[in-house]
Amino acid sequence: MTAIFTTPEDAEEAFYDAVSRADLDALMSVWSEDEEIVCIHPTGQRLCGHAGVRESWRGIFEGNPRFHMHLKHSVRWKGVLHAVHNVVEMFYVGNDPTPHGPILSTNIYQRGANGWRLLLRHTSTGNEGATGDDAGVAESTTHTLH
Amino acid sequence: MTAIFTTPEDAEEAFYDAVSRADLDALMSVWSEDEEIVCIHPTGQRLCGHAGVRESWRGIFEGNPRFHMHLKHSVRWKGVLHAVHNVVEMFYVGNDPTPHGPILSTNIYQRGANGWRLLLRHTSTGNEGATGDDAGVAESTTHTLH
Repeated sequence: MTAIFTTPEDAEEAFYDAVSRADLDALMSVWSEDEEIVCIHPTGQRLCGHAGVRESWRGIFEGNPRFHMHLKHSVRWKGVLHAVHNVVEMFYVGNDPTPHGPILSTNIYQRGANGWRLLLRHTSTGNEGATGDDAGVAESTTHTLH
Repeated sequence: MTAIFTTPEDAEEAFYDAVSRADLDALMSVWSEDEEIVCIHPTGQRLCGHAGVRESWRGIFEGNPRFHMHLKHSVRWKGVLHAVHNVVEMFYVGNDPTPHGPILSTNIYQRGANGWRLLLRHTSTGNEGATGDDAGVAESTTHTLH
């Protein structure tokens, strides 16, 4: 059974929920069926296609303790077929309340027959100023285009 | 006078041409008029808004010798309002034929009243495998959505 995400936000929530549960199948089900999905990790690794993306996340889940992410300073644009979410991710490992990061992430969602799916995820390590606190980035803004 | 870019590729070409000429005004004219354009540099700096983006590029142009970029392994998606180009950039400084990089870049173009403009640019340092040579990434592919 394939879940239908009726908004980009639903797909985003499912993605980060799958990460927090280290659920590889759930995580992969959020991705678009497009052959050339792209995932760039903070390590500088660029993966293209389902097999490579899946294998990289398997390695992340198997090689690390359980972690979850909290999003800050989202900037979102929503169009007819694509939605762009640029976010700052803070990581929390296990039950430790100490935040790690920031990681900068651009997540692009695409609308298809099965609703909104993740098409591209580009992440990289942010510097201290990247949290947006001093860069004029509001806590969350959304632009809808018609 | 504002140039009209009738395709995302026209905007892309104008952007990299402006970089190669260290022409700050030309470079800024490629960006969308959207208030919250986002530019993430390989340093981990995240800039939001025209003033910050302009100032960061002024610093790049003033603090470095002239350089240009060559794009490899483009993966492109084009929709009604947004186009997504994920590319690998190799840098060349002055007339030195030695390539530097790779830099991974996600450039998102948005269609508005003045044609296609750059909305978001997320760059980060790629590792050796990131050139796509061993990651199943073809030299260039384009997906057009209708």
